[in-house]
Amino acid sequence: MTENRQDEVVVVSFDELTDLLERIFIRHGVSAPNAAILARNCAACQRDGSHSHGIFRIPGYVSTLNSGWVDGAAVPVVDDTGGAYIRVDAKNGFTQPAFFAARDLLVDRVKEHGIGLLAIRRSHHFSALWPDVEPFAEEGLVALAFVNSMTCVVPHGGTRPLYGTNPIAFAAPRKDEPPFVFDLATSAIANGDVQIAAREGRLLPEGMGVDKDGKPTRDPKEILNGGALLAFGGHKGSTFALMVEILAAALTGGFFSGEFDWSEFKGAQTPKTGQLFIVIDPERGGNGVFRERVSEICALTVEAGQSRLPGDRRLLERQRSAREGIALSAADHAMLLSKLA
Amino acid sequence: MTENRQDEVVVVSFDELTDLLERIFIRHGVSAPNAAILARNCAACQRDGSHSHGIFRIPGYVSTLNSGWVDGAAVPVVDDTGGAYIRVDAKNGFTQPAFFAARDLLVDRVKEHGIGLLAIRRSHHFSALWPDVEPFAEEGLVALAFVNSMTCVVPHGGTRPLYGTNPIAFAAPRKDEPPFVFDLATSAIANGDVQIAAREGRLLPEGMGVDKDGKPTRDPKEILNGGALLAFGGHKGSTFALMVEILAAALTGGFFSGEFDWSEFKGAQTPKTGQLFIVIDPERGGNGVFRERVSEICALTVEAGQSRLPGDRRLLERQRSAREGIALSAADHAMLLSKLA
Repeated sequence: MTENRQDEVVVVSFDELTDLLERIFIRHGVSAPNAAILARNCAACQRDGSHSHGIFRIPGYVSTLNSGWVDGAAVPVVDDTGGAYIRVDAKNGFTQPAFFAARDLLVDRVKEHGIGLLAIRRSHHFSALWPDVEPFAEEGLVALAFVNSMTCVVPHGGTRPLYGTNPIAFAAPRKDEPPFVFDLATSAIANGDVQIAAREGRLLPEGMGVDKDGKPTRDPKEILNGGALLAFGGHKGSTFALMVEILAAALTGGFFSGEFDWSEFKGAQTPKTGQLFIVIDPERGGNGVFRERVSEICALTVEAGQSRLPGDRRLLERQRSAREGIALSAADHAMLLSKLA
Repeated sequence: MTENRQDEVVVVSFDELTDLLERIFIRHGVSAPNAAILARNCAACQRDGSHSHGIFRIPGYVSTLNSGWVDGAAVPVVDDTGGAYIRVDAKNGFTQPAFFAARDLLVDRVKEHGIGLLAIRRSHHFSALWPDVEPFAEEGLVALAFVNSMTCVVPHGGTRPLYGTNPIAFAAPRKDEPPFVFDLATSAIANGDVQIAAREGRLLPEGMGVDKDGKPTRDPKEILNGGALLAFGGHKGSTFALMVEILAAALTGGFFSGEFDWSEFKGAQTPKTGQLFIVIDPERGGNGVFRERVSEICALTVEAGQSRLPGDRRLLERQRSAREGIALSAADHAMLLSKLA
């Protein structure tokens, strides 16, 4: 760990950051195995430049844990149907430990049947979605994930928020290069990015959200203060947000984004909803060139003039972090240390 | 069949229209079983007000069949992997007969394993996607479908078209009401709607497409004449279009939207690509209230102020057609009869 007072930056390695985050989680009631999973997930977001899901989320994690809203020590219960459909009750814990409790079984079933489904309920997802799907593609599988969150998006043409930011993530292996991975909120902007803009006092572009009276606004504070986000892409994006409510909540047995009641838990910030994974083994299809074909269509997209593919920036940030370490502002580093107290 | 000269309208029943279309398909080389499937599909689009995929497509079907580009009498070959992953080689025929060749097997596997996948390749899809998924939901299943088409959409920020209109369709059963079904092109507008606007001499809204030099235009003729469409919702919609290329073509073993060569087949209009289905049995998840939950989130969407859900207009048109018959313009009816000659 090196500290540079001049730039007010603290540089840490991935392992150092993971270790620090793990101790913070444990300090606030997360069990050791769950803390290891959450710390790695959060450190990966910070490492890869997903700043709205990195250490920026730690105060929210801590506040939520201290409120009693989430059980950091929850032991998820896996319900193996014997087929390609696996359910997990997260038991009011975080989604990622529930996911890892069933992940190996899911991969076995995908290899056996060609496709598999993992439905997680009573779970709290408070991070990016790409860390959940990328490792499947690193193993040669294709993965889709859907998670609903907390009410902040107005249905198209509507006046009141109903959906969460409801991201959809996708990962597919490529030939001799990292997987193609995307993680897209179906809102016009991610909630975390609105929070960061509010913190930094920046205005948002047009079309991102509305104030508490349903009127368009560019002020992130007005959006956060009783306002709401819009879906991306008009009625189509709004329809995908609705589909995510159906897949991640109705199908799993989890709560809709507007349904859970955390009013008794002051400081709670994590949505208690559901998450759905669909994982496919492309080799099962007898199409031996799948990786090559994914690489090919990605290359053609760049040839057609798209300057950057989803995930490109993340991979560059990851390489830089590996080379130079992860740079935290001194203020952020101090914030992390304060959570150990 | 009743004819009203004053309004220049010919009213037909669903069965009458299906029968007429079936005879047209057979007249142009489609085998009897394939013709029955295509006729029913096309008549359903017309009945439900999906006019850009109804009888409007018949000249294109006929032109393509006569060009030799598609084999109307193709006998699809089903490759049963013994698991939940089924492949079909459409043998250069239309997608719908390939789909029906494997549909019952797919449903069996979904019931057995909880989820199933159907991958169709070497197939021509020239219709709407909702008729493919809706019947699964009528049987209580959840279905997702992806189909790529022909190059006409520019990747986000790019200069040349690469993707097709690449729709995504979804269906889920509801309680005591018809299924929730959507069918959304990932282009800003459907190709058929551009063709209809061109025919009717209407300008399009802003943001739908570009001319042959990559410049934004509202003129549908300029879009069709060497121009291209934009994806819906900026970079996110473009990313979903790319995902459809990966799922419907790379995964199935079909062609990308920009890959097939029909230059030797004058009059060919049908894209020869691939189609992917993912079908889920919600009952397998042990969540006995899935239908109720889908109805609930749909009702909440309307309560939040969205005036119309995807599929609502289709259901109203379907009811009207059942009540009043299907009204064809005299010109359209004459066009159909001319295809029997």
